[in-house]
Amino acid sequence: MSQHIAEIISVGTELLLGNVANTDARDISAMMSQLGLNVYYHTVVGDNDERLEAAVNIAKSRADVIITTGGLGPTYDDMTKQTLCRCFGRELKYDEAAAQEIRNYFARRFHNHNMSENNLLQAYLPEGCTVFHNTCGTAPGCAFEEGGVHVLMLPGPPRECEAMFRLSAMPYLRRLSEGGIWSHNVRIFGIGESNMENILHDYMVSLTNPSLAPYAKEGECLCRVTAKAGTEAEAEEMMAPVIGRVREMIRDFIYGLDVESIEERCLQLLKDAGMTFSCAESCTGGLIAKRITDIPGASAVFKGGAVTYTNEAKIGILGVDAGIIKEHFAVSRQTAAAMAEGARRVFSSDLAVSTTGIAGPDTDESGKPVGTVFVALSSPEGTWVRSLDLGTDRPRVRTVAAHHAFDMIRRYLTGLPVEL
Amino acid sequence: MSQHIAEIISVGTELLLGNVANTDARDISAMMSQLGLNVYYHTVVGDNDERLEAAVNIAKSRADVIITTGGLGPTYDDMTKQTLCRCFGRELKYDEAAAQEIRNYFARRFHNHNMSENNLLQAYLPEGCTVFHNTCGTAPGCAFEEGGVHVLMLPGPPRECEAMFRLSAMPYLRRLSEGGIWSHNVRIFGIGESNMENILHDYMVSLTNPSLAPYAKEGECLCRVTAKAGTEAEAEEMMAPVIGRVREMIRDFIYGLDVESIEERCLQLLKDAGMTFSCAESCTGGLIAKRITDIPGASAVFKGGAVTYTNEAKIGILGVDAGIIKEHFAVSRQTAAAMAEGARRVFSSDLAVSTTGIAGPDTDESGKPVGTVFVALSSPEGTWVRSLDLGTDRPRVRTVAAHHAFDMIRRYLTGLPVEL
Repeated sequence: MSQHIAEIISVGTELLLGNVANTDARDISAMMSQLGLNVYYHTVVGDNDERLEAAVNIAKSRADVIITTGGLGPTYDDMTKQTLCRCFGRELKYDEAAAQEIRNYFARRFHNHNMSENNLLQAYLPEGCTVFHNTCGTAPGCAFEEGGVHVLMLPGPPRECEAMFRLSAMPYLRRLSEGGIWSHNVRIFGIGESNMENILHDYMVSLTNPSLAPYAKEGECLCRVTAKAGTEAEAEEMMAPVIGRVREMIRDFIYGLDVESIEERCLQLLKDAGMTFSCAESCTGGLIAKRITDIPGASAVFKGGAVTYTNEAKIGILGVDAGIIKEHFAVSRQTAAAMAEGARRVFSSDLAVSTTGIAGPDTDESGKPVGTVFVALSSPEGTWVRSLDLGTDRPRVRTVAAHHAFDMIRRYLTGLPVEL
Repeated sequence: MSQHIAEIISVGTELLLGNVANTDARDISAMMSQLGLNVYYHTVVGDNDERLEAAVNIAKSRADVIITTGGLGPTYDDMTKQTLCRCFGRELKYDEAAAQEIRNYFARRFHNHNMSENNLLQAYLPEGCTVFHNTCGTAPGCAFEEGGVHVLMLPGPPRECEAMFRLSAMPYLRRLSEGGIWSHNVRIFGIGESNMENILHDYMVSLTNPSLAPYAKEGECLCRVTAKAGTEAEAEEMMAPVIGRVREMIRDFIYGLDVESIEERCLQLLKDAGMTFSCAESCTGGLIAKRITDIPGASAVFKGGAVTYTNEAKIGILGVDAGIIKEHFAVSRQTAAAMAEGARRVFSSDLAVSTTGIAGPDTDESGKPVGTVFVALSSPEGTWVRSLDLGTDRPRVRTVAAHHAFDMIRRYLTGLPVEL
């Protein structure tokens, strides 16, 4: 196993002003993880020579792979190469091949019109470095080793940084890594994070490699299994029994392994079953339809939806019996069932889901508390309704209500009890 | 201007694995900037006591405001409070008021069903600290001063972190700041970023304080006016003429000042006019309905929507003439108009918008290119249609098509030409 320790230093005042998030550090970290190299720190500093130097000296004392992003451009506040060379006792030298590439870039892109001479400052590179070609911009990157520390410098613009890391830095770093890290995400809906953790805790702390880590995620949970190994096949063999054990403990609340979302799982299940669905939404206001149609190919299973925010729309469009609403109110088990049945009929779909509830901030004329939500599934075998209390946070009420609608479809199509 | 130096330390292995970007540091930095406080460093460390301690000791040596995010939860790998207390020589004490809030949160949210006892670990707080209430989760935050260094601890989940910073940390920090930075956002839709920049460029570079900065934002633009001043009133007086000048240059493409979104602007305009709307969505698949109902109080103006993904739904639910679809196809100016007119009739709303288009990745039977979208507005005075080419990126096609629908409502209600 590799024992290298890496630190990413991102240079840019715009990061410290909060104009952008540090997606370079995220993207590089994810790729380092694939390489099996440990990233222990991210540091962000502004375009300031003195503070960058101090940050580099701290990094030298605790890491042996230092990756910088940003500050390679042609303007006066781009100083990463100068500062790093000073810290590591290297000279900057003019590189004619790099200069020619910069000229070619402008020739290709702008027909030579507007290349200002300061662009050639980017052709000064640390003596004896490995030059990283920039496939989407002008500033080349580079790498060198000095006193056992590997220094890699990448440009700041996210597309340039990501492409250069993938094409040049990964091959450079691969020789430092023995093996890699692989992981799987077990996606879970229907139990809370602390609940999941109680169930898994003893098993979790007993593991080191593979490891098991719980995450909360917008009203659902996931649990990540990660293995460090020499090869992917070895890692998979190590992870399989752990995933099996998690399946035994969490069972029906697991909706998928490595799927993007519960709606994506539903789309696949519906396709496999050759079935279609539609929806009738009140409190989720279009969110269910929006989430399924976010996925390319949704039209294969989704016939459409009605957002019926008023009683008249529930009656007029979905054919809900006015007497049901009068007797039980719009937010009720009975109305939810009638809405799902109405959508199924109107859209001629095999299944239909519905939501009716009080997303807040105010309650309705029934006086039921905010967070009261009914979610229904209508199928050829009948209609089920879940009665839920989803709290007082409006975005969360809507998100979790939509999760429930998809979860009912998932459970129906996998032969599990649909009601909770 | 204040001379304090702040550092943000974000704690979380998921950041070092590249699972998520450090949006907490971005959001806090942006709000620090509003306060006129300088952030000089961001540091990210994993859930590791020793490395966190080392990072805190470095931060103590170079900053006098240390803000941590993450590691306040109830699980064994949440250790931020313990480590920070050790670094600053404080004891952790059980806080009964904080414990009661956590119990109340579970009572409210889950009727006490499933609060596991480990949640009460979150009620241990540094002795003598200022407690920060968590409005969207369970873990309280806190702040204390020790040896001239201010330490603030905030939870990691972005919504909790952002809300707590705004509601509790900002008031705490405001007294450290002399003067501050204030800004306004001019929200713009209908011209591209480079176009906006061409129009504003000469004026923009002539300004220093207030300054003017352009941003691109998911198919729309904004331009931020920022002033540094001793008081808010002074800042406002400095910004007013700049905003006036931008209004003269960008004119009808400006949809609002400091509004959250174009749909929020529409909600207000519809309320002011005492009018309602509905929608009929094909390629946007529920996104328009979802966006308006994201806003509390939408039911005052929104009657409902139909997501008609199939021709049968367009005909059956909206009453679109089958002959129109047969002659002109589903993605056409004529179908868009008929969908909007149908929605207006079916939902009995004053206005209605519709979308029909090819979001991709594949085209439809008409063979029109991906990105072809028609957006219509039906009103008592007649129907307008915009014919658009929105490119090949599916999420962007959907987002921008929805922007156009709201923009047509905005232009109608402000007496501007509705077609582009």
